[in-house]
Amino acid sequence: MTTSHPSPHTRASAVLPEPWGSLLQRANQIARTSDMKELYRATLALLMDVAQAEAGAMYQYQSDVHEVLCHVAIHPQARGVGECYPLEFGLLALQPENPEIAWYPQVQEEEDWPRTPGARLYPNAQSLLVVPFASQGRLIALAELYNPQKTPYPELSFLAERLVSELDKAAGIFARWRDNARLQALIAVIGELSSTLDKDRLLRLLITYAAELLNAEASSLFLLEDESRELVLHLASNWKEVPVEKVRIPADKGIIGHVVSTGETIITHDTQQDTRHYQQVDRSSGFLTHSILAVPLRVQSITLGEDLGQRAEHIIGGLEAINKRIGRFTQQDANLLTLLANQAATILEVADLYTDANDLFLGVIQAMVAAIDAKDPYTEGHSRRVSEFSIAIAQEMNLPPDFVHKVRIGSLLHDIGKIGIPDEILRKPGRLTDAEFARMKEHPTIGARIMAQVHTLQEELPAIAEHHERLDGTGYPRGLRGEEISLLGRIVAAADVFDALTSDRPYRKALSAEDALAYLHQNIGSHFDPECVEALTRAYLKEKVRTQKERIALQRALDEL
Amino acid sequence: MTTSHPSPHTRASAVLPEPWGSLLQRANQIARTSDMKELYRATLALLMDVAQAEAGAMYQYQSDVHEVLCHVAIHPQARGVGECYPLEFGLLALQPENPEIAWYPQVQEEEDWPRTPGARLYPNAQSLLVVPFASQGRLIALAELYNPQKTPYPELSFLAERLVSELDKAAGIFARWRDNARLQALIAVIGELSSTLDKDRLLRLLITYAAELLNAEASSLFLLEDESRELVLHLASNWKEVPVEKVRIPADKGIIGHVVSTGETIITHDTQQDTRHYQQVDRSSGFLTHSILAVPLRVQSITLGEDLGQRAEHIIGGLEAINKRIGRFTQQDANLLTLLANQAATILEVADLYTDANDLFLGVIQAMVAAIDAKDPYTEGHSRRVSEFSIAIAQEMNLPPDFVHKVRIGSLLHDIGKIGIPDEILRKPGRLTDAEFARMKEHPTIGARIMAQVHTLQEELPAIAEHHERLDGTGYPRGLRGEEISLLGRIVAAADVFDALTSDRPYRKALSAEDALAYLHQNIGSHFDPECVEALTRAYLKEKVRTQKERIALQRALDEL
Repeated sequence: MTTSHPSPHTRASAVLPEPWGSLLQRANQIARTSDMKELYRATLALLMDVAQAEAGAMYQYQSDVHEVLCHVAIHPQARGVGECYPLEFGLLALQPENPEIAWYPQVQEEEDWPRTPGARLYPNAQSLLVVPFASQGRLIALAELYNPQKTPYPELSFLAERLVSELDKAAGIFARWRDNARLQALIAVIGELSSTLDKDRLLRLLITYAAELLNAEASSLFLLEDESRELVLHLASNWKEVPVEKVRIPADKGIIGHVVSTGETIITHDTQQDTRHYQQVDRSSGFLTHSILAVPLRVQSITLGEDLGQRAEHIIGGLEAINKRIGRFTQQDANLLTLLANQAATILEVADLYTDANDLFLGVIQAMVAAIDAKDPYTEGHSRRVSEFSIAIAQEMNLPPDFVHKVRIGSLLHDIGKIGIPDEILRKPGRLTDAEFARMKEHPTIGARIMAQVHTLQEELPAIAEHHERLDGTGYPRGLRGEEISLLGRIVAAADVFDALTSDRPYRKALSAEDALAYLHQNIGSHFDPECVEALTRAYLKEKVRTQKERIALQRALDEL
Repeated sequence: MTTSHPSPHTRASAVLPEPWGSLLQRANQIARTSDMKELYRATLALLMDVAQAEAGAMYQYQSDVHEVLCHVAIHPQARGVGECYPLEFGLLALQPENPEIAWYPQVQEEEDWPRTPGARLYPNAQSLLVVPFASQGRLIALAELYNPQKTPYPELSFLAERLVSELDKAAGIFARWRDNARLQALIAVIGELSSTLDKDRLLRLLITYAAELLNAEASSLFLLEDESRELVLHLASNWKEVPVEKVRIPADKGIIGHVVSTGETIITHDTQQDTRHYQQVDRSSGFLTHSILAVPLRVQSITLGEDLGQRAEHIIGGLEAINKRIGRFTQQDANLLTLLANQAATILEVADLYTDANDLFLGVIQAMVAAIDAKDPYTEGHSRRVSEFSIAIAQEMNLPPDFVHKVRIGSLLHDIGKIGIPDEILRKPGRLTDAEFARMKEHPTIGARIMAQVHTLQEELPAIAEHHERLDGTGYPRGLRGEEISLLGRIVAAADVFDALTSDRPYRKALSAEDALAYLHQNIGSHFDPECVEALTRAYLKEKVRTQKERIALQRALDEL
């Protein structure tokens, strides 16, 4: 450790003659920041100081669009920061391929002056000094200095040469930071999308986030309708004028039609002039589009499982971001929207698969229980109505949706055990003998036994097994009492009796809903759970449930119209 | 345009005295690149030239771990690039808070020398010059120059001061570029995960990508088992020694238990010393863990839909990345793995929901058709066997999995119309009268009518409607011929007759499988589709299908064991 000896920290100002030592010192100092805006600001301030300028502005050159973006302006009435200008407007003699310092001692006399950013920033400027920052002939940035008292070309060149690589790198950091922020936002959006299987909510989230991620004024989402081969504008953000469902486009027309039929991405900067633009959309929506970024909604190949195989990749529609707020839609924007659209399309497809699986299940059991009910004309439609009444009771009791779903399934299946009861008993017009009734009373047990094999249906079984139990223990098949009967069983019991009472039977006419509810109320505590009866009564008063007779009457009234 | 006049492009070498003009010129030149490795290389080369050194290496200082990372070495036998070294080893007198140039004229006599990176890079070095690059006292990088002929401190300081901000910014670009690449990889992984609903495949993908994304030697995935409250090692990458299912951990034990029970993230750099580490895992797996990054698998709150409600956020297990290959697990690694784990957990949950919905559907219709079959003791289990035979035929015909799934559903439901046939006909022990048989023949039509209401079941209907049609038009109910009968109908027809023939009937004993297949072959073209019969025969010969009698015999044999 002993042989190391410290060197004096050699500052540029100590070894270089003035003004170069101080200038390099100040430039090195400025360069310590990696923050792009701060670096632009400090660089401009240094240049203004060196040239003793009254005001100044500094721009980043964006070679892809041949524009400059104003990052900073130093002037009492500074305006125009954050705005973009085409390079040909007002930066006068500047050539991006071979940029050199330019001096306009009488800038007001320049023909292009009124179109320059400077004319907005400092309308009364007399003179203008433009300092380019270029690396190997490649323009990176430029500074405008207004009314300078000096034009020290060597010093300005010296500083530009020292700082151009710093400006370039700071812009590189900023661009990647912004990409990063966008990717992180995208991941958060994907997380939110993938945790919803509700298609409507999914679509709403998607268009909201599409516009937000891309900083666009609006976004719209078209889904391909298989039957009509039309693209249906499903949702749009910020389209106030008309209901979106009015807008339909033939599947191969317009920008979105092209995107959906070819799978290509389209960016337009002047939509009104684009021959592919389907003007009808603007007319229908009352929304004027200037620029569009449109990408397909492409569902990836989905692996459903060993037994279920795969769904091939396919396009289900298209997603548009409309009217970029600042600048233009770029290739990066297109990449980002494509990532979002593909992910969203896959999530939408999964949500559809899930919804289809549930719909198929509900549809098939509804059809089956309807067929079983229909064996006895007096019980036609019974299970479906009991299910509706049971759901209404559960909802009125403010039970959570996952419980309500169990109520839906369990109540639909409550009489499934009738499969095991002989037709002659089910359809017997007169009163049943004791032996027949004893047989009939087996249906809850038979039904529960049939469904007990289904391991994912265990929580719904009480609806089947216990819907003929009564609170006082006089029910069947087990004679359970009070809380021994599950909530599910108590709900379906009330719904079942309500439907039975309000339907015709071979031995009596249907009761009115009021009389049936009165009967239920009379038997609260002995037969029925008070909360279930109250909930059913509330649901009836709110017209959330209708008896069979009321349905028939309503249908007849509608038919007569 | 006329008043602008070009300035001569002022180079540093034109205004500054030597050697400063040339040095600044060369530094400005080097600084044009934004590529970190190239900038390090060019900077080192310049320093070596100035000091006339024989060899050199250049390091980036990583303040979070107090280590240096070797980016470049210039020497004929250059080694150690890409490696990290603790700062206290061998960089000798260097203080990161107040770094100054250090000179070791007799480096072999330094006590620390053998532990320095230089001792690996240039074992016979005589002298060493260490040049720090620091910005406001903050160490950014350092260069080692071996056997320099000169020790020009002012020039080296001048260059370090000029270039430190460039090195810092280039590193900033590189770090953000790397973060970006990782986020993009994560998005691609999420895309692949979210396009599979097959849980086994999902888990395999997840552990593979977890190790890959984090550059870890291995990864492992534990799922919480509800019943046992144990964490079960479900899958692990690169664990060769034992079957992973052997490893079970109490839900609150070990690092992974802590993560799962608290929801916290854990990073350990010395796992063997960590008291939370559950040594049993290493012993069982034969895999020695040095460092671990463990995160919970947290399912976000899932919106199932309006009717289905929400599933609350919950933790289903934990994910570990094990043994970081280069460097240490960082907070960024933890963030990335958390993003992956949360997304994967949600996708896993959705896959479970989808699987549950399908299982529920299949379970309920199996139970229902079994109950209908059981009305007639002679047809008990018929629908389930016909479904198995039909699936075997479809698979032998190499039909795609989504068609096979339609076969599965359609064949299970093929006799559903028997719900509408009176028990006295279904269960009649003797031959049916003509009138009764005419009634019986309605079951395909009745079944199709029942299920036609289910809009998502349309493609399965032919299995119900056409399973009694024959190729020559002598079948019922519609007397369709040849290709008029759907493939689904032809498959189920062959399977249905095969099961009927191989089951006892009131009026005859069961045929053997061989006799039944012979009967089918005799009626190819008239009754049955040749391809379906051939496929069934192949499936039988491969023992993929068994008749009812064979099942009973097999069960009896098993019972006797």
